[in-house]
Amino acid sequence: MKRAYNFNAGPSALPLAVLQRAQQELLDFRGTGMSVMELSHRSKEYDEVHNRAKQLLKELMNIPDTHDVLFLQGGASLQFSMVPMNFLTDGRVGNYVLTGAWSEKALKEAKKVGETHIAASSKEENYAYIPANESIQLSEEAAYLHITSNNTIFGTQWNEFPDADTDLIADMSSDILSREIDVAKFALIYAGAQKNLGPSGVTVAIIRTDLLERIPENLPTMLDYRTYSTSNSLYNTPPTFAIYMLSLVLEWVKEQGGVGVIEKRNQEKAGVIYAAIDESDGFYAPHAKKDSRSLMNITFTLPNEEVTKRFLAEAKERGFVGLAGHRSVGGCRASVYNAVPLEACEALAQFMKEFPKYFG
Amino acid sequence: MKRAYNFNAGPSALPLAVLQRAQQELLDFRGTGMSVMELSHRSKEYDEVHNRAKQLLKELMNIPDTHDVLFLQGGASLQFSMVPMNFLTDGRVGNYVLTGAWSEKALKEAKKVGETHIAASSKEENYAYIPANESIQLSEEAAYLHITSNNTIFGTQWNEFPDADTDLIADMSSDILSREIDVAKFALIYAGAQKNLGPSGVTVAIIRTDLLERIPENLPTMLDYRTYSTSNSLYNTPPTFAIYMLSLVLEWVKEQGGVGVIEKRNQEKAGVIYAAIDESDGFYAPHAKKDSRSLMNITFTLPNEEVTKRFLAEAKERGFVGLAGHRSVGGCRASVYNAVPLEACEALAQFMKEFPKYFG
Repeated sequence: MKRAYNFNAGPSALPLAVLQRAQQELLDFRGTGMSVMELSHRSKEYDEVHNRAKQLLKELMNIPDTHDVLFLQGGASLQFSMVPMNFLTDGRVGNYVLTGAWSEKALKEAKKVGETHIAASSKEENYAYIPANESIQLSEEAAYLHITSNNTIFGTQWNEFPDADTDLIADMSSDILSREIDVAKFALIYAGAQKNLGPSGVTVAIIRTDLLERIPENLPTMLDYRTYSTSNSLYNTPPTFAIYMLSLVLEWVKEQGGVGVIEKRNQEKAGVIYAAIDESDGFYAPHAKKDSRSLMNITFTLPNEEVTKRFLAEAKERGFVGLAGHRSVGGCRASVYNAVPLEACEALAQFMKEFPKYFG
Repeated sequence: MKRAYNFNAGPSALPLAVLQRAQQELLDFRGTGMSVMELSHRSKEYDEVHNRAKQLLKELMNIPDTHDVLFLQGGASLQFSMVPMNFLTDGRVGNYVLTGAWSEKALKEAKKVGETHIAASSKEENYAYIPANESIQLSEEAAYLHITSNNTIFGTQWNEFPDADTDLIADMSSDILSREIDVAKFALIYAGAQKNLGPSGVTVAIIRTDLLERIPENLPTMLDYRTYSTSNSLYNTPPTFAIYMLSLVLEWVKEQGGVGVIEKRNQEKAGVIYAAIDESDGFYAPHAKKDSRSLMNITFTLPNEEVTKRFLAEAKERGFVGLAGHRSVGGCRASVYNAVPLEACEALAQFMKEFPKYFG
C-alpha cells in the first residue's frame, strides 16, 4: 500500500499509527468480543475511552480546572448558533472579528439571535491578514468577542490573541492542538475534530464553567451547554467511534512528546513549503501577508488558471491529494495538519521547485 | 476471537461481515492510499459513498419520490427540538402520543417551542402497551401527530400506524429497517443510526418535501431541514465515517434479501425468546402486553431482585452482553436488532430455560 500525500483541508490526514491501531482492534475491542462501535455508551469499557479522551485533552492542552471539556455534534457550524443562543443574552452585544468565510458564518447565525458588532475585519483585502489587536474596537455592553483562530480558506492564523475586555470565544477548528496556547485566556474554545483531532462527527468544546450560570432557561436541551457539562457529555448517545478515534489521536500526540514537539514540527513542515513559495521568484504568490501566515493552511496562486490546472494535474499524478484552492482565493492550498508528515511537505516543496522548470 | 452475544440496546451489534469489510479497507479506501476517514467530504470518492447510502435506503425502504433522505447529527434528541422548531408554526398544536420515555422527551422539547396536546398515552400502565388507534384524539389545528414507533425501554412497538387527519411524524430510531413499512403514510421519519443502521453519530431523516415549504424563516441554519435538503446533506462536513458504515450496513441488508427477509428473521429471533418467557410458567414475566410486543426489545422481569442479579451474573459468564433492564422497568431486556444473529437468540432462550432449574 502506498500512502497518499494527503493535503486535504478537512477531513484530512490521520496518523498512520492511529489508523493501524483502530484497524487492529476493530473487530474485538480489548477482549470484549465486540467492536468499539458495538459497545453501549453506558458500559465500563466505553466510559474508559470517553474519559481518557477528555483527560488526555486536559493534559495535552494544560486545561485549567476552571474549564470543562465537552463533546458535541454538528461541527463548528452548530456552534455558530449555540454560542449566541447561550451567551448573547440580556440585550448585550456579540462582538465578532471577521477574518474569513467561517467568521462571517458565525456572525450570520448570531444576527438571528441578538445584536452584533463587527469589532475588526480584514474583508476589504480578501482576508489576507489578521487585524492587529490594537485595531479591535469592542461595542458597549459586549457579551463576548468571537474570533476564528485559523482561517482554513484564506491561510491566515492569529499569532497573539487579544486581551479583550470581555469573554474571548474562539473557533479553533483548524488549529487546535497544533501549538501551545494559554487556555485560561479563553472563555470558550470549540473545534470540529476533522482536522487535528480525529475524524468528522465530533465537536470539542472547552468552556470556563462560570459561563454556564449565564445560560438562559428553556433552551432546547441539546443546544444548552449545561446538558453536556452536567452529564459528562453522555445525556444521549455520543458519537462513540469518533470519540474513540479522538482518544487514539490524543495518545499519539502524547507519544510524540506533546503539543510543544508538534508545534516545532509544524513550523518546520510549513517552513519548507513557504520557502518554496518565497524562493520561486514570484512564480508562486502567497495569499496571506507574512505576519499572518498560517502553519496549517498554506495558500498560494500560480501565474494563471492554465498553469494552475497543469500544476494540479501533475501533482495528482505524483500522489498529492487535496491541493486545489478554495474558490474564494483560487490557486492552491496545502493543508498541513498535525498528522501530515514532514516527508510529504518536503516532497511537495521539491515538486514546487521542479514544476516551473519543466511545466511553467 | 469469540464474538459476544451482544444484546445491547444501542449502540448495538453490527453485522460481522460489515465490520470485516470496514477493517479490511480502513487503511486504504479502494485504492486511494487514504482511509475513508481521511477523504475530503467534497471528493468524488466520498460522494459515491454518500450517495450510495442515500440510494440504498430509498431502494430498501421503497421511499417514494415525494420524500427526500437527509443525514443529520445529534441523534433523535436533537430531532425532538428540530421537529417543533420547523413545523410547530402558525399557532398550531403539536400532537403527541406518549408510549414511553422517549416520547415524553419529544413532548418536553416541543413544549418549549409551542402549544402541544397529548393525543393518547399509556403512561398510567407504565407504558406496557401501544394505545389503540381509535383512542387517539387529535386537538383542533393539529400541526402534526408524533409517535415513537418502537419503545426501546418498555419493549413495545406499533403494529399498525394511525391514519391520522394530520401529518404523521415518527421517531423510528429503534425499529427502522426492521420491517416493511409504507413510507408514504409518514410526513417525516427520523432515526438515530445506532440500532439498525450503523454506529452512533449519524441521524437519518426521511421527509416529504412539501413540508419544507412550511418552515419559518430565520431558523439557525443547522436546525433547518432545508439546509440538508438543498445541499444533499453536505452544507458542512457530515460525519463521513458513520455514513460510510451506514452504506455498508445497507449493502448487507440488500445482500440478505432486503427488508422483507430481515423482517421474517426478526420475527423468528424474537419468537424464540418470547417462547422462553411464555413457557416459563411465570418465572419470566413480560412487561409488554401481548399485542404490543416489540420485535426489537424484549423486556421481562424475574421473581425478585436477588434472582435477577444472579441471572445477569450467570448470563455474563456465558458471554451474554447488555441484558440488564432499564431502571424504569427493572428486570431484563434483550435487544435483538437486525444484526443480532438467530444463534444468539437461541443461546439466550436455551439459557433462560435452564436457569430456573439450576439457579431459580
